[in-house]
Amino acid sequence: MAFGWIGEQAELRRRAGLVRTLRPRAADTPLLDLASNDYLGLARHPEVTEGAARAARTWGGGATGSRLVTGTTELHTALERELADFCGFEAALVFSSGYAANLAAVTALAPHGSLIVSDAGNHASLIDGCRLARGGTRVAAHADPDAVRKALDGHDGPAVMVSDTVFSVDGDAAPLTALAAACREHGAGLVLDDAHGLGVLGGGRGAPHAAGLAGADDVVATVTLSKSLGSQGGAVLGPARVVEHLVNVARTFIFDTGLAPAAAGAALSALRLLRREPARAARAGEVARELHGRLTAAGLHAVRPDAAVVSVRAPSPEQAVRWAADCRAAGLSVGCFRPPSVPDGISRLRLTARADLSGAEIERAVQVVGETRP
Amino acid sequence: MAFGWIGEQAELRRRAGLVRTLRPRAADTPLLDLASNDYLGLARHPEVTEGAARAARTWGGGATGSRLVTGTTELHTALERELADFCGFEAALVFSSGYAANLAAVTALAPHGSLIVSDAGNHASLIDGCRLARGGTRVAAHADPDAVRKALDGHDGPAVMVSDTVFSVDGDAAPLTALAAACREHGAGLVLDDAHGLGVLGGGRGAPHAAGLAGADDVVATVTLSKSLGSQGGAVLGPARVVEHLVNVARTFIFDTGLAPAAAGAALSALRLLRREPARAARAGEVARELHGRLTAAGLHAVRPDAAVVSVRAPSPEQAVRWAADCRAAGLSVGCFRPPSVPDGISRLRLTARADLSGAEIERAVQVVGETRP
Repeated sequence: MAFGWIGEQAELRRRAGLVRTLRPRAADTPLLDLASNDYLGLARHPEVTEGAARAARTWGGGATGSRLVTGTTELHTALERELADFCGFEAALVFSSGYAANLAAVTALAPHGSLIVSDAGNHASLIDGCRLARGGTRVAAHADPDAVRKALDGHDGPAVMVSDTVFSVDGDAAPLTALAAACREHGAGLVLDDAHGLGVLGGGRGAPHAAGLAGADDVVATVTLSKSLGSQGGAVLGPARVVEHLVNVARTFIFDTGLAPAAAGAALSALRLLRREPARAARAGEVARELHGRLTAAGLHAVRPDAAVVSVRAPSPEQAVRWAADCRAAGLSVGCFRPPSVPDGISRLRLTARADLSGAEIERAVQVVGETRP
Repeated sequence: MAFGWIGEQAELRRRAGLVRTLRPRAADTPLLDLASNDYLGLARHPEVTEGAARAARTWGGGATGSRLVTGTTELHTALERELADFCGFEAALVFSSGYAANLAAVTALAPHGSLIVSDAGNHASLIDGCRLARGGTRVAAHADPDAVRKALDGHDGPAVMVSDTVFSVDGDAAPLTALAAACREHGAGLVLDDAHGLGVLGGGRGAPHAAGLAGADDVVATVTLSKSLGSQGGAVLGPARVVEHLVNVARTFIFDTGLAPAAAGAALSALRLLRREPARAARAGEVARELHGRLTAAGLHAVRPDAAVVSVRAPSPEQAVRWAADCRAAGLSVGCFRPPSVPDGISRLRLTARADLSGAEIERAVQVVGETRP
């Protein structure tokens, strides 16, 4: 039978305790949410949801075509202009997802004969970008500027170093200043995925801005509209000529329908709200540090957060799953990361700080995680 | 300078007349639209835009996380159930784009040691799926079941044949019955991208349904929510165990934020409308055939449409661009496909039929295309 081999793989997953299932949620749930990436608590904010509703009514349910044909509205252009301005870059280009933005940036900036140096902890979408790119890839040890230097040594031709700014699994930050210095010694470009930095670091303007790298002619950032901005989509930020290059060559831009107006409208409303209320960004970081401090005080193995992700080690995949389920039974929703979604094979609970969590909610979350520990 | 080589590529594009630029559109334009993929004219339908607005208000501006964490709402599940039911498949899985759905289907169904046979005219997203997959790829001549047979001959291990059902550039249909027969002789699975078939063929249920292939245990279809359904997103349709497999292994599912509620809501509203008013599907095909008949009668080189895309050959890329610009100046928006977006290097105007075009609009469109021909 054509797909017979799928059954064997399913059986292996079941035996290893690694089966994933979908758990549909209702619109209103009594669960305390420390699992989403809604870092600023804006996904349900009335200004954001009205931004989505207004855009759908004004522009339609979809963009109706590729950005190069009918899929670029004045709303997309406004979002690109304000996003670039806020994050400190010359230009921006919006995609239907952060995944698509990463595939575009990496493939377009790594032509045949070029070299990509990729951090060992990078997100799946950056790894897939490396695999699709015509250039060759060398994987450098995690957050290690010297490893980047060694990988770039002796390469002749265009080169880029690609890294998350904040790593999704452990919430640790990349050493951006040192990475930029290593790249500049070798004339290499730097592509930074700021999915978990935008809205949290640098007063909300993101990690490249905080590191003084935004707007440099050798730095490109990618962001997502689906985390701090409570919507969907992604963007590439950089020099105008890099953005023009992407318009002409990036396959996930050219051959994809433009981002839906409702998503562009929601993201633009969230961006304007963040600009008006920058304290939300600082608050997300404070909540994360408070969570970490209390978890550590309770004897749990939590990684010190550099942004809004707090990772807690679990003894095994099975125990991680049970731990997350026990949290849920006690009214707390937390993430559970297991192989193959973790680069080091270590399973974790993943707690995300939200700027709108109250002190009592933080206390309750820590209590539940502590009481349910394996 | 890190990205210095980009300037050289830009110069080459300029000399070849192949520069692409974005043309933002206003919410209301007097242009007659024969460029979008809004085949049923539903993107601006009040039921569809209200579906988007209501979903944003009820569920938020974004899905807030991966479908495996917080990104699956009951709205996503309803859309998946109704889409599978309408198209005649056991199960469906919704993605943030058709591009992501295609990457998922191809990579998940072509493991190490397997063979992908890919039609030479396939969409970029299927080609990228082949490039990302661990299995090997053989490209078969366009719409040629014997070429598929030859490519499958002698391969030992899992195999899939991958094809668009309706090809985006020329609007021609794949010979589905013969392709399925070729695959079945070799025990190979069939993956069909029905982006341009859903909503138009088979009373709207799509090309696999029209060919009697929907629901077969060796057939998987992918669709987009951004064409006939006037929204954004994509889906994979197939046997429940294939969908379960994707949930467990497809990177563009696991590592992407779920589709925004507004997009899911718009698509669900459009699907229900299509189900209630199936005549819209037949009308899109009629409009395409009428366009083709009149263009041919006017002496233009138009390809006979199998769905809603009508392709008209242009003498050169430069003349195609000028032709499309002249149409626009005369109030008609048409698509313009040039290298590298056309597999055969031939530039075209691309006209799309919409179910809601009036006879007078069709007449006007044909008149403008004829009067502006190079």
